[in-house]
Amino acid sequence: MSDWVQTGIGKAEADAIIIRGRDLSSELMGKVTFTELAFLLVQGRDPSPGETALLDAVLVSLADHGLTPTALAARLTLTGAPESLQGAVAAGLLGAGTVFLGVVEDTAAFLEPVVAAAGPDPDDERLAAATRAAVEARRAEGGRIPGLGHPVHKQVDPRTPRMYEIAEEHGVLGPHLRALRMVADVHQELTGRALPINGAGVGGAALADLGFSSRIVRGFALLARSAGLVAHLAEEMERPLGMPLFLEVDRRVELD
Amino acid sequence: MSDWVQTGIGKAEADAIIIRGRDLSSELMGKVTFTELAFLLVQGRDPSPGETALLDAVLVSLADHGLTPTALAARLTLTGAPESLQGAVAAGLLGAGTVFLGVVEDTAAFLEPVVAAAGPDPDDERLAAATRAAVEARRAEGGRIPGLGHPVHKQVDPRTPRMYEIAEEHGVLGPHLRALRMVADVHQELTGRALPINGAGVGGAALADLGFSSRIVRGFALLARSAGLVAHLAEEMERPLGMPLFLEVDRRVELD
Amino acid sequence: MSDWVQTGIGKAEADAIIIRGRDLSSELMGKVTFTELAFLLVQGRDPSPGETALLDAVLVSLADHGLTPTALAARLTLTGAPESLQGAVAAGLLGAGTVFLGVVEDTAAFLEPVVAAAGPDPDDERLAAATRAAVEARRAEGGRIPGLGHPVHKQVDPRTPRMYEIAEEHGVLGPHLRALRMVADVHQELTGRALPINGAGVGGAALADLGFSSRIVRGFALLARSAGLVAHLAEEMERPLGMPLFLEVDRRVELD
Amino acid sequence: MSDWVQTGIGKAEADAIIIRGRDLSSELMGKVTFTELAFLLVQGRDPSPGETALLDAVLVSLADHGLTPTALAARLTLTGAPESLQGAVAAGLLGAGTVFLGVVEDTAAFLEPVVAAAGPDPDDERLAAATRAAVEARRAEGGRIPGLGHPVHKQVDPRTPRMYEIAEEHGVLGPHLRALRMVADVHQELTGRALPINGAGVGGAALADLGFSSRIVRGFALLARSAGLVAHLAEEMERPLGMPLFLEVDRRVELD
Repeated sequence: MSDWVQTGIGKAEADAIIIRGRDLSSELMGKVTFTELAFLLVQGRDPSPGETALLDAVLVSLADHGLTPTALAARLTLTGAPESLQGAVAAGLLGAGTVFLGVVEDTAAFLEPVVAAAGPDPDDERLAAATRAAVEARRAEGGRIPGLGHPVHKQVDPRTPRMYEIAEEHGVLGPHLRALRMVADVHQELTGRALPINGAGVGGAALADLGFSSRIVRGFALLARSAGLVAHLAEEMERPLGMPLFLEVDRRVELD
Repeated sequence: MSDWVQTGIGKAEADAIIIRGRDLSSELMGKVTFTELAFLLVQGRDPSPGETALLDAVLVSLADHGLTPTALAARLTLTGAPESLQGAVAAGLLGAGTVFLGVVEDTAAFLEPVVAAAGPDPDDERLAAATRAAVEARRAEGGRIPGLGHPVHKQVDPRTPRMYEIAEEHGVLGPHLRALRMVADVHQELTGRALPINGAGVGGAALADLGFSSRIVRGFALLARSAGLVAHLAEEMERPLGMPLFLEVDRRVELD
Repeated sequence: MSDWVQTGIGKAEADAIIIRGRDLSSELMGKVTFTELAFLLVQGRDPSPGETALLDAVLVSLADHGLTPTALAARLTLTGAPESLQGAVAAGLLGAGTVFLGVVEDTAAFLEPVVAAAGPDPDDERLAAATRAAVEARRAEGGRIPGLGHPVHKQVDPRTPRMYEIAEEHGVLGPHLRALRMVADVHQELTGRALPINGAGVGGAALADLGFSSRIVRGFALLARSAGLVAHLAEEMERPLGMPLFLEVDRRVELD
Repeated sequence: MSDWVQTGIGKAEADAIIIRGRDLSSELMGKVTFTELAFLLVQGRDPSPGETALLDAVLVSLADHGLTPTALAARLTLTGAPESLQGAVAAGLLGAGTVFLGVVEDTAAFLEPVVAAAGPDPDDERLAAATRAAVEARRAEGGRIPGLGHPVHKQVDPRTPRMYEIAEEHGVLGPHLRALRMVADVHQELTGRALPINGAGVGGAALADLGFSSRIVRGFALLARSAGLVAHLAEEMERPLGMPLFLEVDRRVELD
């Protein structure tokens, strides 16, 4: 059992809590923001100020979109189990799957091999070539190009240009974000249809540029959603929506 | 159904996402940190810089303590369901109940009526009187005083003095944190035992000073833990601990 | 680590799966029903035919009540994460807390010391005396008597007489069910109000009579609800209700 | 909102609970077993005695395999949140994903089109032809044949012959179970390797023969596991394993 019980994340010791080799009380509290700590926890190194700004923008962009199905599920769960706030938050996160947050992961996963294929520090030409090859290959096998299109924002998802602006402003516009723009261009060229890059897609590309593996980027969407869910549950405690929603459904339900 | 479908939190509209009356893209992304957004989401107003610093310190202090039972539960869940990152995070949060994070809530709930009884803007004398009355009443009914003592940190929990330092430095040392110090003093006076204020207790008092109801403070502990869980799951993907842990248990298990 | 890795439940061995000392393939499959296995798993002994009948009746009575808040939460969770059936079932169970299923546990917990106080094999007189003492004590401390009253079934909850009938018919009417009837009588005598024994209360008393500790009886309610949730999720796959429900809420929502 | 709030499952009305058109108290309690009710809830019709026997055998075979990763996750969750039994059961179910229970679903999904292709009431010849075509197609595209092989049971998984025996004995050996045996034969013929049909695979085939869509068969595995989890949590309350397991890990952990 000895050799595999190993972790780089941290440990609570008799006189201190250690996180990524730092003393929590003296080296982290009051010195790093929660966003910086989240970066440090997952990557094992401090983010640069620009990386922090980009990660903050991603988390802010994904935190809450109002009374979504997941917010409703969390509120209905509190209706039956008000004693378990953790249960209601967990129920809300459980709906954060492929339909709503999958695009974050899918986009990062699509771009990861593109950027790898373009080689280190790729110029626009190499990156564009790798992007075009990937889009064509995906289309050839009949697959979807992730990160494009939105049921509501037909022209432009307002989060997308803002994310690029923030990345440029802080000098952290990386190859995944750059490639995603090329994806949209190539897609339009090949199909004749201009589809906007959506907010989930741009979030996935930004997280990939921040160095997170595509397998874990959805974790940041879950972290972001936790904040929204806490807000919904705080409101639910003051002004319940779960019980009236149930009663309305119950009033209207028809048995086959 | 119309009048109760109301929320102050936000909404996704055709051309914008609105959060607490602000436009997500132009007014929040790139302008507020994730911590500031979490505050805004729950309270409906912006935090002051001092409030943000204190909330960051609380979230940082609660985010991760290494291979805790909840981190192990999350990792073991990923072992069986690697396709569902949200399920593994949810499983980790489900263990964040009364034993590990209850003190955050219990301490805030204990201090809330103390501060209310002391009246607006209480001086030390009034606050101390209200605190003493509450401690005596709780002891008279045989109840525990929350927020004191720690299985490991017998003398001092290093997070506690640090949190007070941060609160003072940023001018946000409020009545709940002040009262908690008095709780420890009164408890020592009445019992002869000096118990340190623990990190969960000081977190609960700080969240109460930030204006959060005791009923929702545990939500911030859950938010904080989400970051730690994402880190554990990212590490689990690279270097699995769930399967070897199971195999070790399986090797040693004895049937009655 | 050796001595505590012990369990009486079972183990998968190289050539067999052992459950409570029986070989799963040759001694359980085809020989016991799922209800009998659940009893055996928790109690470590086989139920009598009468006990099986009563446990079946309890599980049947608690399995599903239509589009409850927990069924809605499960369906809304599937809307966002159709890839994770376990997540949707889990979300549904998370709402099975104190409000909807707490009465099962509360009633068992109230009756447990009553039956203990009445001594082994109590006649009606001793049981009635212990019951009266417990009801009076609970009322003296201002507490609620669990298991009585129902928002809809004002006169009689139809599950209650049926459960008593089944218990009597199979010769397993035990002291907890008998005491619960006395609870209702004493309550009426003391308050002048006739409240019916509700279906959750009678379920809790029946489970206590079956030998289950009050701390675990809610587990059987969760087991029962799992069946209902699977049915709701199967229907949701064919005829989705989560997305239209969300769209209806979204259409009507008003921001403060 | 009116037309989509429709369900065939049931409804709680003022004087009765209706499930699949039956009155819960007078028509189901005491008349059907929990297994029969689960079948009725999902399919909307009563099972035959043979179908009930087969479904019981499947549920019994999947209910518990000892201290699995999911049982450990449930127990560790109870360690931190003993107030929320539903949270611990939910945490246990969340690990019941593709690795441990996916084979149930994968096998049913593989066999579904095979049986459809063989046409109604297929004789062995037609069924064998459809099976061979499917196995060859799956192998041609480099995919895995589900339901075969087991890390421990190299020769035979003892649950498999028992399940076939039960199905034959009750006259419910259907085309999916028959085809699964042909899958193993064709696989051996094509590869030269004899792999046993595993218990999860035979469970999936049996559930498909019982008329359940491959998309929902995993729901029955979750239902079965709920019983095992309740047993583990009942034992955990009496004889905790979560805390010692954590302490052992904590004692051995090494930071990178």
